[in-house]
Amino acid sequence: MNKSDSLVARRLRSAMLATAMLAGALGVGSAAAQNLRDIRPSEGPLVLESRGSFFVGGEQVDKTAVELGSFGPDDRITINQMYVEYMIPDGAAKVPVVMVHGATLSGKTYDTTPDGRMGWYEYFVRKSHPVYVVDQVGRARSGFDQSAFNNVRAGRMPPEQQPNLLRLADRFGSWTNFRIGPEPGKPFPQTQFPLEATDNLSRQSVPDLLGPSRAPNPTWKALSDLALQIDGAVLLTHSQSGPYPLQSALIDAKGIRGIVMVEPGTCNASVHTDDEIAVLAKTPIFILFGDYLSSPTKLPGPTWEDRYNDCKAFEDRVDAAKGDVRLMSTVETGVRGNSHMMMMDRNNLQIADLILAWIDEKLGSEKP
Amino acid sequence: MNKSDSLVARRLRSAMLATAMLAGALGVGSAAAQNLRDIRPSEGPLVLESRGSFFVGGEQVDKTAVELGSFGPDDRITINQMYVEYMIPDGAAKVPVVMVHGATLSGKTYDTTPDGRMGWYEYFVRKSHPVYVVDQVGRARSGFDQSAFNNVRAGRMPPEQQPNLLRLADRFGSWTNFRIGPEPGKPFPQTQFPLEATDNLSRQSVPDLLGPSRAPNPTWKALSDLALQIDGAVLLTHSQSGPYPLQSALIDAKGIRGIVMVEPGTCNASVHTDDEIAVLAKTPIFILFGDYLSSPTKLPGPTWEDRYNDCKAFEDRVDAAKGDVRLMSTVETGVRGNSHMMMMDRNNLQIADLILAWIDEKLGSEKP
Repeated sequence: MNKSDSLVARRLRSAMLATAMLAGALGVGSAAAQNLRDIRPSEGPLVLESRGSFFVGGEQVDKTAVELGSFGPDDRITINQMYVEYMIPDGAAKVPVVMVHGATLSGKTYDTTPDGRMGWYEYFVRKSHPVYVVDQVGRARSGFDQSAFNNVRAGRMPPEQQPNLLRLADRFGSWTNFRIGPEPGKPFPQTQFPLEATDNLSRQSVPDLLGPSRAPNPTWKALSDLALQIDGAVLLTHSQSGPYPLQSALIDAKGIRGIVMVEPGTCNASVHTDDEIAVLAKTPIFILFGDYLSSPTKLPGPTWEDRYNDCKAFEDRVDAAKGDVRLMSTVETGVRGNSHMMMMDRNNLQIADLILAWIDEKLGSEKP
Repeated sequence: MNKSDSLVARRLRSAMLATAMLAGALGVGSAAAQNLRDIRPSEGPLVLESRGSFFVGGEQVDKTAVELGSFGPDDRITINQMYVEYMIPDGAAKVPVVMVHGATLSGKTYDTTPDGRMGWYEYFVRKSHPVYVVDQVGRARSGFDQSAFNNVRAGRMPPEQQPNLLRLADRFGSWTNFRIGPEPGKPFPQTQFPLEATDNLSRQSVPDLLGPSRAPNPTWKALSDLALQIDGAVLLTHSQSGPYPLQSALIDAKGIRGIVMVEPGTCNASVHTDDEIAVLAKTPIFILFGDYLSSPTKLPGPTWEDRYNDCKAFEDRVDAAKGDVRLMSTVETGVRGNSHMMMMDRNNLQIADLILAWIDEKLGSEKP
């Protein structure tokens, strides 16, 4: 895909300039417990045609009393279901968007930012898109299969077979890995992350409980099923969930009208077969990275620059199959300081405008 | 408290009569996977002054790499925070209500019902109340402390010291214990629970992960803190969380304007000291039970009739201290069939009207 995507680039530049100047003036506050008073009022009433929540998928499985952690008899539960909350704006005129969070987080990622501003969930709704926010299978309100943990507790399974519960923590998992700054507690001079609210980012952390269901991850099919139920949607993913829509499209691409991958953990450039690339080439894809990509994460594994380069290789493969991938970094527009958590950055709504512009360009003429 | 609480009783009787007749006509459908199409449209647009989410409380604690389940260095996380989502209606005129779910469930309890009707969260908002729905500490979007599980996995802690992960399951934990019917799969003839949607109740299950923090439960203080942040609220709780507002009021009653306990697991009638009862006597309390209370739960432990009787003893103690407790069963109004999950029952909005009538009677003259 060529780099002269001028509508998108122009919108980003103009929107970000004002925000960047504002952010600089705000300075850095001290950490404080979030409470309701930190939340900034929205600009006008939000008028919804409807809202609510439901589940996609899930299987009924029988479990022993031990596995249920129960004082009662053996019984049956449901596992691998995916929680979905949604808002449909009054007079919704645009394509639905499904938002999926990253590792050791929940759907909260896309709601009110750590410093109390509007998140992408409500903003996209205010921009006439029906929006569906999920909790990944095995996380938060989607629940999880507790059997292995209770079997280990009861001495019925070796402890080392219990799933590892990864949690990204404050100093390295977040600060350096999410590129708030180069060293824990030290921000990049131009960072867009609301530094006074890192404590509230920490509060959002929800450990992964998916365990051995991880491949194939049930969230992949749940997302393609959800897109079908909505009669077509853009899948917007982040970090860990970044590559999920590619898997969802390989399962069933019919409902997937577009894919937005915000700083995907990988694009699996060397994983997909040519046949798979040919399928993925049928869906428009936007991949967006922030700033300071080469900064050491201070964790083992690839840097974000490595991940960007993997997505570049993915773009090249899809381009060769005559697909439509737009890979960019916010820095290309002249704006500096966006972190891995750009849906929470001070200029989060301008980043949203960039994504909305891409969606309009690719799907603007389609009915919702 | 006398039983001639006639406004409340009259409203319940008239509202329920029509609903009970309607529910009888609906019959019982077959179980089916919920999807978006099962959700019934709301009657008109929902106009919100604001909405969003935030956290209350939480402590920063240092953890080892093993405890983080991480490939990286030791680091710091936050535990014991409580997730809160909220909607404030445009022109909100009434006292805020905080809704707290029961065991092995999440805030989803109060949203869209298993068969796709409006839940209490939205209904109370449409009735001019700002509403705050929480996930209990250690559950769903509130996250949890994963340390013990990872220490056990690494052989650093004996497996039997790992928290037990209780999950209420379909046939006994839900069907008989929640009084959908007397035997698994067999409903009470007049049940109000939407039988065609029991599969979707099963999908809502989220195992408890609070572990050793359970007493004193951090949710108790988080609720009194939240009530203060809102400048006064009614705490509405259910089942496991039923008695939490009593603990919250003993910590700090300043923000707690009223307490609604829907089928509390206990009223701790014999637990509280006379001094504590004297404190609790200062807050109006409404305790509501459903039908078939003496039906065997098929689990060890007390029946719901036992729990009702415990609340009766609690009422007597608070009455003696000149308090204001209203304990009732929906059956007293002549309406039959309400289950433990009455916020999901077919007549859930009429049950809500009963609670709203009590709130209006006790707090209707107060400013929000």
